[in-house]
Amino acid sequence: MTLMRVAIQGEKGSFHEAAADKWFEDNIEIIPSTTFADVFESLNKQKADAAIVAVENSIYGSINEVYNLIAQYNYPIVGEAYLNIHQQLIGLPNSTPEGIKQIYSHPVALAQCREYLTSNFPQAKLIEYYDTAASVAYVKDTGDASIAAVGSATSAKLHDLPVVATNIEDHPKNFTRFLVLQPDTLPPSDANRSSLVMTVKHEPGALAQALARFATAGINLAKLQSQPIVGKPLEYKFFLVIEASGPLLESVIEKIRSDGNDVRILGQYVSATETVLRN
Amino acid sequence: MTLMRVAIQGEKGSFHEAAADKWFEDNIEIIPSTTFADVFESLNKQKADAAIVAVENSIYGSINEVYNLIAQYNYPIVGEAYLNIHQQLIGLPNSTPEGIKQIYSHPVALAQCREYLTSNFPQAKLIEYYDTAASVAYVKDTGDASIAAVGSATSAKLHDLPVVATNIEDHPKNFTRFLVLQPDTLPPSDANRSSLVMTVKHEPGALAQALARFATAGINLAKLQSQPIVGKPLEYKFFLVIEASGPLLESVIEKIRSDGNDVRILGQYVSATETVLRN
Repeated sequence: MTLMRVAIQGEKGSFHEAAADKWFEDNIEIIPSTTFADVFESLNKQKADAAIVAVENSIYGSINEVYNLIAQYNYPIVGEAYLNIHQQLIGLPNSTPEGIKQIYSHPVALAQCREYLTSNFPQAKLIEYYDTAASVAYVKDTGDASIAAVGSATSAKLHDLPVVATNIEDHPKNFTRFLVLQPDTLPPSDANRSSLVMTVKHEPGALAQALARFATAGINLAKLQSQPIVGKPLEYKFFLVIEASGPLLESVIEKIRSDGNDVRILGQYVSATETVLRN
Repeated sequence: MTLMRVAIQGEKGSFHEAAADKWFEDNIEIIPSTTFADVFESLNKQKADAAIVAVENSIYGSINEVYNLIAQYNYPIVGEAYLNIHQQLIGLPNSTPEGIKQIYSHPVALAQCREYLTSNFPQAKLIEYYDTAASVAYVKDTGDASIAAVGSATSAKLHDLPVVATNIEDHPKNFTRFLVLQPDTLPPSDANRSSLVMTVKHEPGALAQALARFATAGINLAKLQSQPIVGKPLEYKFFLVIEASGPLLESVIEKIRSDGNDVRILGQYVSATETVLRN
């Protein structure tokens, strides 16, 4: 049996790997990547069959770069997953809290623990690194007890390093939303959510009119995110998550287009918000 | 004469300093800060009289952290400034393009040049650092010709280092929007723009209804940005920039509140979009 190859940003032991394991369940081959752009290039060069990418964290906010890559590459979003994220401060066996001078991690992970770290480790410099798990590996490589990393419990275990402080995220309700991209794949038949990208005509009230089209059809808007259009400062595209799919969605899109706006479906999939709601 | 103390994120030679010089014109004393949180703490501890903070770049997108700090600290926004940003690759006198293995800069600056750098310096690792100007200083300190930085022409001059590659931003229309915060200051009498933060009731169509209130009053929405509400995953607050101020704005806000939504004015100021439109 050929394993499905899944591209992730980061290394083994990262939260992206945990999300991939949660979504695909079966055995998969993880294709680690340094950057999000590399993840999309792995799909483009057919070095991966699917990808899973973080788009938002409930403390940090949206990860701008991923939104832009999704719109640019146009691979269908076929699923979403929410992961309850717990961050650990990971050091060396001889680390002491007062001896830690540098803390490495992914910028989104550092943002999740910023209050905790600046209050409890005021002497430490926070240093952004491309991945949580890679930060943990780096700490091990240096062998320097003044350097620590923020990462998952899994990454601590993987590199056999002790956790200096447990569950250090600034709020216990800390979720990251991941999207699954799979080229040439049709939406699941039970899809009840969709991601769209929209640009509206240059008229006051154009966005209100477009959103009213969803409201009139009884469709709930779960998320609205604006991103600047590169090369057109002051102009924005909007990324929407709506709770509808199939013919109902198509009929509203038709109306929004006939109003003079551009809108494109990025994917239709099954809502995973249950993970968040039951926590 | 006592100089006005202006807190910025970053060091002398940063784009924040350029924005402060543009806005305040007169002599000011710059209060450099490592993090955006420190900038707001400088105001809180009255170590600064005003602050200027980047909120968005036309290639990178919104800087989430700053939105959250503005809402949290609630100092009035009294002005905005747009700066046309040109990034330089800065090295040592003996740097050669093929010898550059590490490129340091602020994550927002790296994002502006990512395509250029990955195409032209595929061998180089991009390393996030807290400030563009501090990255340039770091390159000088190391004396290592394999390390370069992305920063302003001013920072190269300040540290007497050569520019290895000029204007390397991925798009020539590259603008950063800065907001000026000044405690206990009233809006200027000619204010024509406002920043608001809004949360809408939990009903389908609530956002569409709120935006329609602006449209009906003939008020243009210049920007809409969502941020997750920390501790309430799946819920969002919206940051709006609208082209209105004073009594007209107040009357619409009254209506939006009577619909059952929360909305707060973060500041009223004079639009600076002319800077962008004439470029």
